[in-house]
Amino acid sequence: MATGNTAAQTCTVTGTARPGDGGALKMSAGAAPAIVAATATGGGAGMAGMKWSGWGDEDVRFTAQDKPALGPFLERHLGLDLAHVSTPPARFADLDVPEPTLEPELLAALEQAVGAAHVSIDGLDRVTHARGKSLRDLVRHRRGEIGRVPDVVVRPAGEDEIAAVLSEVLAADAVVIPFGGGTNISGSLEVPDDESRTVISLDLGRLDRVLEIDEASRLARVQSGVFGPRLEQQLNARGWTLGHFPDSFTHSTLGGWIATRSSGMQSDKYGDVADLTRGLRVVTPAGMLAVRPVPATSTGPSVREMVLGSEGRLGIITEATVHVHRLPEQRTILGYLFPDWSAGLAAMRDIAASEAAPSITRVSDAPETLFSFATKKGSSIVDRVKSRALREFLERRRGFDVSAMCLAFIGYEGSEQHVTAQRRLTGRIVGEHGGVCIGRGPGELYDQKKFDTPYIRDYLLDRGALADVSETAAPWSRLTEVYDNVMGAARGRFDALGVKGYVMSHLSHSYHSGACLYFTFAFQPAPGRDGLEDYAAIKAAIQQAFVDCGATLSHHHAVGTEHAPWLEQDVSAPGVTMIRALLHSVDPGANLNPGKIVGAEKPAATTR
Amino acid sequence: MATGNTAAQTCTVTGTARPGDGGALKMSAGAAPAIVAATATGGGAGMAGMKWSGWGDEDVRFTAQDKPALGPFLERHLGLDLAHVSTPPARFADLDVPEPTLEPELLAALEQAVGAAHVSIDGLDRVTHARGKSLRDLVRHRRGEIGRVPDVVVRPAGEDEIAAVLSEVLAADAVVIPFGGGTNISGSLEVPDDESRTVISLDLGRLDRVLEIDEASRLARVQSGVFGPRLEQQLNARGWTLGHFPDSFTHSTLGGWIATRSSGMQSDKYGDVADLTRGLRVVTPAGMLAVRPVPATSTGPSVREMVLGSEGRLGIITEATVHVHRLPEQRTILGYLFPDWSAGLAAMRDIAASEAAPSITRVSDAPETLFSFATKKGSSIVDRVKSRALREFLERRRGFDVSAMCLAFIGYEGSEQHVTAQRRLTGRIVGEHGGVCIGRGPGELYDQKKFDTPYIRDYLLDRGALADVSETAAPWSRLTEVYDNVMGAARGRFDALGVKGYVMSHLSHSYHSGACLYFTFAFQPAPGRDGLEDYAAIKAAIQQAFVDCGATLSHHHAVGTEHAPWLEQDVSAPGVTMIRALLHSVDPGANLNPGKIVGAEKPAATTR
Repeated sequence: MATGNTAAQTCTVTGTARPGDGGALKMSAGAAPAIVAATATGGGAGMAGMKWSGWGDEDVRFTAQDKPALGPFLERHLGLDLAHVSTPPARFADLDVPEPTLEPELLAALEQAVGAAHVSIDGLDRVTHARGKSLRDLVRHRRGEIGRVPDVVVRPAGEDEIAAVLSEVLAADAVVIPFGGGTNISGSLEVPDDESRTVISLDLGRLDRVLEIDEASRLARVQSGVFGPRLEQQLNARGWTLGHFPDSFTHSTLGGWIATRSSGMQSDKYGDVADLTRGLRVVTPAGMLAVRPVPATSTGPSVREMVLGSEGRLGIITEATVHVHRLPEQRTILGYLFPDWSAGLAAMRDIAASEAAPSITRVSDAPETLFSFATKKGSSIVDRVKSRALREFLERRRGFDVSAMCLAFIGYEGSEQHVTAQRRLTGRIVGEHGGVCIGRGPGELYDQKKFDTPYIRDYLLDRGALADVSETAAPWSRLTEVYDNVMGAARGRFDALGVKGYVMSHLSHSYHSGACLYFTFAFQPAPGRDGLEDYAAIKAAIQQAFVDCGATLSHHHAVGTEHAPWLEQDVSAPGVTMIRALLHSVDPGANLNPGKIVGAEKPAATTR
Repeated sequence: MATGNTAAQTCTVTGTARPGDGGALKMSAGAAPAIVAATATGGGAGMAGMKWSGWGDEDVRFTAQDKPALGPFLERHLGLDLAHVSTPPARFADLDVPEPTLEPELLAALEQAVGAAHVSIDGLDRVTHARGKSLRDLVRHRRGEIGRVPDVVVRPAGEDEIAAVLSEVLAADAVVIPFGGGTNISGSLEVPDDESRTVISLDLGRLDRVLEIDEASRLARVQSGVFGPRLEQQLNARGWTLGHFPDSFTHSTLGGWIATRSSGMQSDKYGDVADLTRGLRVVTPAGMLAVRPVPATSTGPSVREMVLGSEGRLGIITEATVHVHRLPEQRTILGYLFPDWSAGLAAMRDIAASEAAPSITRVSDAPETLFSFATKKGSSIVDRVKSRALREFLERRRGFDVSAMCLAFIGYEGSEQHVTAQRRLTGRIVGEHGGVCIGRGPGELYDQKKFDTPYIRDYLLDRGALADVSETAAPWSRLTEVYDNVMGAARGRFDALGVKGYVMSHLSHSYHSGACLYFTFAFQPAPGRDGLEDYAAIKAAIQQAFVDCGATLSHHHAVGTEHAPWLEQDVSAPGVTMIRALLHSVDPGANLNPGKIVGAEKPAATTR
């Protein structure tokens, strides 16, 4: 599922200030937080190439060398010296990986179930499966604090093998933790420190096929372990798309998206994973759970919606039947600039209330817009001239304060006629709120580079800065309150801790009644202090501001262990009771990913 | 929630056969299954005027006197003599209503909680609250077999009073059954025959207010007991609409819709109640359950989706925060005719896959189309000339076989420009499938008369015929299989029982990947047999055909007791286990509407 989008929009404003047709300005492509090699493929080989202590492919790294404005920006806001790698990660060879706790009988049974070649007790394999990619996960792994690693990694090929593995797990009273791409940032994958039973990481990477496309129903039956790129590749080859593109897309899987209630960048059109997932097959301790792929149903409390977000605690999702769409004839993402944040928010709200149906609606606040500009690549003289001209146009002709202005993207998909009509509808609303279209260039760049942003976190960690994200959703009427309180909470924590920090936000994922606000924050811990303690204080302040303002603890990053302290405040005590009872009902022995969502197990029905 | 739509479309084809602009034919208004007085208001007074043994307002009755074709139609297909009321309902005065089982202490406590004026042990009140309006409910009530009636009807004014009532119920180990409009047709309201505890029917009719409209978020906070008309009246007065119009609209409530997963006629635009319900407040034995009105969330298994469809078993829903929309500038429902059922289905599928976004998509099969024509009112000479001309146009110019043709309605809402664009998009697809637009007249009539159809059931029961509905949803690719198997199953049962029967269907509620099929069936039981036994056999055959063909046991009529036998086949055994555990977790004493959805209580976590 989605990991931190560090909001480094990949476009910078360098275009000529010549208002074109429909208010568009000609733009040259700006710079991205470019990575050294962008060969993300993600598919097929499962974990192949994933860094054990960082984000993404082994051979891909973020660099700031081609971004002249980034150094001064990070120096000013975080007190960071980009030239100095102060905190390199531990070397794997220096780790003391504990021997697995694994009875020979269970090992033999697992080998029997999936074949010996697909059972691994290799240290690197086990450490790479020990956690997800939260900031806390990365920092501890980098420090060599690898915690309670799984005893064995098992890679089944299909449903029958998964059922056989689960049967052995239950017979041995072991623990199984389903593993997709391993990108979760809420602690959903971690083994509890005090877990004394044998722990099996069940890597689903071999379940990577689209099994069937029902073209009349626009449904695809897909195995759960498929990574984003390989899924789209198989669908695209037949003219279809799922349209689900979380930030983690290249390194996350369908099963992971479902187990965490993921949301993709184009959710305005394609829906969240909870909308687009219809049928499900789940191997549970109580037997095979099957949800029919019907478009709607009235069968009591929704079983489908119980599997969504279950984080491996109800069972192992083996396949899903999901909405697919024909590849669009046209696909365009346009950049816009708004004079300030409130204008940007109001425009997105009015677009959601209009008859327009864009595929992407996204607007950054001023701090995130400034950060985006700071990540632009070294530009030519022509670019600089164009950039100055745009700036003058905005300031003199449109009255913009460029330090307050906000960068936005709106995406359009469909037939040429549809796209044209949508652009006209949203263009009118953007204009009503003082916004200006800055053309295709920034949008194309955003689109090309959108999966690169998670790499920046490792780059900052190398230099001693901690960066993370917290995101939420709330009704339109409360977004300003949520935003103001979160910004105040984060900056208040920076001040109280005496650290240099930066916090920025964007709105994305618009709905009828509200939207997601996505916050990114970074800071340089004070010398002599444990960065993770400072991090915990800042993260907690942000999460508390969410629930205090009527927002939710997370829009699409799951509960795991990281957000569990806010669950009761969010869904109320009876809600927690219901979730706990539900999980307990099919897994009374707590053999499935224990400790996630509702914490330590208690017997069901303890409320009276 | 929705009750039986006996599919008596209210338009008949009587127009001149002059293709107008855009293929529309001029139509004069056809006849409806008109009722003697159509003063349905539903709101405010709660149950006031509801028949104890039939549908709707006391002073409203269906009549066939003005429909010359209906008598011969019903005679031919059901062997019915309309002139002869063979099976009148029992008179209330002749019933033997049992005395309530109610300790004076509990009665006093209930009076203390809500005020003595709002606690009733009146016989008529209790009998009217004993059941919903399923065919089985009506037949037994009409026979005077009133079963285990509630001991007392309690009418709280708000959340605090409901909490006080529930507290007394639990202290006394009594049973409480929440009651909205009392229109459920799946047995969701009935007291189990063997219930020995005191039974309280909690009538929520006094909770009838829109509490707040959040205009920026397009959300309204509404009390759960409000009836459809009074809800729309309050919203309309401020320029808003919920857009939820189930067949039962005039006599059902928001809380009832939520508790049963209702779907309205315009769900293509406004969504099912599961989509449009965001926030919830529910008084449960485990305390106050509150779901925040956020547009999306990632808080594990969805608590919101556990309350939806819970049929009063988790608690008493006191209010909901729901999507509202601005009243549309334009609203049009056009009639269409297709050469046959498969053309109609294919057109609706293609419209769902297109860029068009109509508010209503509905197509009747040939038997339902013929029934609609049979309900037309006596027409003028001019009408008859027009009708003949249309028929000749369809047969000669378009090659229609009028006995196979299928009547459809497509609705459009929004700005003039939007409606025009939608009509153009759908018109093209309709034409590709050989369909013909027959203009506004039939659609207007359908729209005016859409809430009248449930009254026809009482009219048929008076004359000895039993009529009911079963509806389902399935992927587009399976609808023909579902349809063929259901028609075969129903007709096979008619033959096996040796009864004259009629079965017909329409498609409504289109989604990305499938649609709802709504079947109506009627028959005249064989002399000397119990009609309810024959009914059970026919209903069971239809339900079994649903689940055998991959469809769901109900699209929007809930599980109750009527559909419970198919739940495990639909959601699988672990799904039933999960639902049962969930209900048990907040209501371990089974004090809330026991026996519904998953049948008799069993301890949670019994699966291993």
